[in-house]
Amino acid sequence: MGESEQLELNPRLIVPFVTSVERVFSTMTGVRPKAAKPRLKAEPAPSYDVSGIIGFSGEVIGSLVVSFLEDAAVSLVAAFTGEQIAPEDPVFADAIGELCNMIAGNAKKDFGLQTNITIPNVVIGPDRRIGWRHDVPCVAIPCTTDVGDFVIEISIKQLTPVAQGDM
Amino acid sequence: MGESEQLELNPRLIVPFVTSVERVFSTMTGVRPKAAKPRLKAEPAPSYDVSGIIGFSGEVIGSLVVSFLEDAAVSLVAAFTGEQIAPEDPVFADAIGELCNMIAGNAKKDFGLQTNITIPNVVIGPDRRIGWRHDVPCVAIPCTTDVGDFVIEISIKQLTPVAQGDM
Repeated sequence: MGESEQLELNPRLIVPFVTSVERVFSTMTGVRPKAAKPRLKAEPAPSYDVSGIIGFSGEVIGSLVVSFLEDAAVSLVAAFTGEQIAPEDPVFADAIGELCNMIAGNAKKDFGLQTNITIPNVVIGPDRRIGWRHDVPCVAIPCTTDVGDFVIEISIKQLTPVAQGDM
Repeated sequence: MGESEQLELNPRLIVPFVTSVERVFSTMTGVRPKAAKPRLKAEPAPSYDVSGIIGFSGEVIGSLVVSFLEDAAVSLVAAFTGEQIAPEDPVFADAIGELCNMIAGNAKKDFGLQTNITIPNVVIGPDRRIGWRHDVPCVAIPCTTDVGDFVIEISIKQLTPVAQGDM
C-alpha cells in the first residue's frame, strides 16, 4: 500500500478542533462554547438528539460528529440564521450541517496535511448510537454553552506515507 | 473556484450502486438483494433502524447511506461474519460499516473519476431522520431480501472542472 498507519492519538489532530469550535460558534452565533478536556471514548455511547457528521479522507482519515441536545441545536441555529427554525424544517439540517462544515474546514487548515472533507450528513432523533471504526481512536470533547450542551467526537488518524529510504 | 457544478442527477453515478449492492451482498453474505427502481427523495424521511454512512470527496462529492431494518441487519451481519452478533456489540457496527465500505468502494471504481471515500460511521436507533445538503439530489433505492428490507440513499454529484477553452 506504500503507507504505514499510525494508531496512537495525535494531539496535532485534536487541538485544531478545540480552537475551531470556539472560533466558529463565537463568530457565527455569538455563543461562546466552553470546551472540557478531551477524553477517549471507549464504546459507542448514546449521542445527543441532533448530530452533524463529516468525513475526512486523504492524509487524514476518519470523521467528525458534532452532537447537540435539541434545545441547544434550536438556539444555536436561531442565532446562526437569525430565524427560529423547527428541527422538522429541512433548513434546520442545512444550518447544522453548515456549522459542522465550518468546524471541520477550520480545523483541517491547522493539520498542515492534504485532507479532504465531505459534505455533511445530519442525523435527527433521540436514542441513537453513532459508531466508528475500531482501529481508529475516538476522542470526545464535551462543550457547554449558555443555551445548552453539545459534544464533539473526533475519530481520525493520520496516514503516514512510507519515506523512500524505508522501502 | 475553477469548477462549475452539475445539479442534475447523473445516472452514471447511480447505476454503479445498483450493480455494487447486488455484487457485494451476493458475494459476502450469500443473500441476493432485489433492487427496486431508484426514486428521488424529496425530504429527509425516517430511515430504518441501522444505517451506515460513507462520504465521497474529490471529483464526486456527497454521501451514501445504507439503512437496514434491524432484523435484516442482524441476519446480514450473521451471514457476513458467520456469527450471531447483537447490535449492542461494537463488532456489529464494524460489520455494517465494512459492508457499506465495500458497496461504496465497488461503486466508485465504475465512476471513472478521481474520488475518495471516507471510513464509515454507523448510526443505530429507531425514529431517526438522516438529512443531506439541499443542493445535492438524493436518490433512494429500496432493496428487498429474503431476510428483510434495506434502502440505499445516494446523495452525490459530480464536480465538473471547467475546460480550458471555456475560460
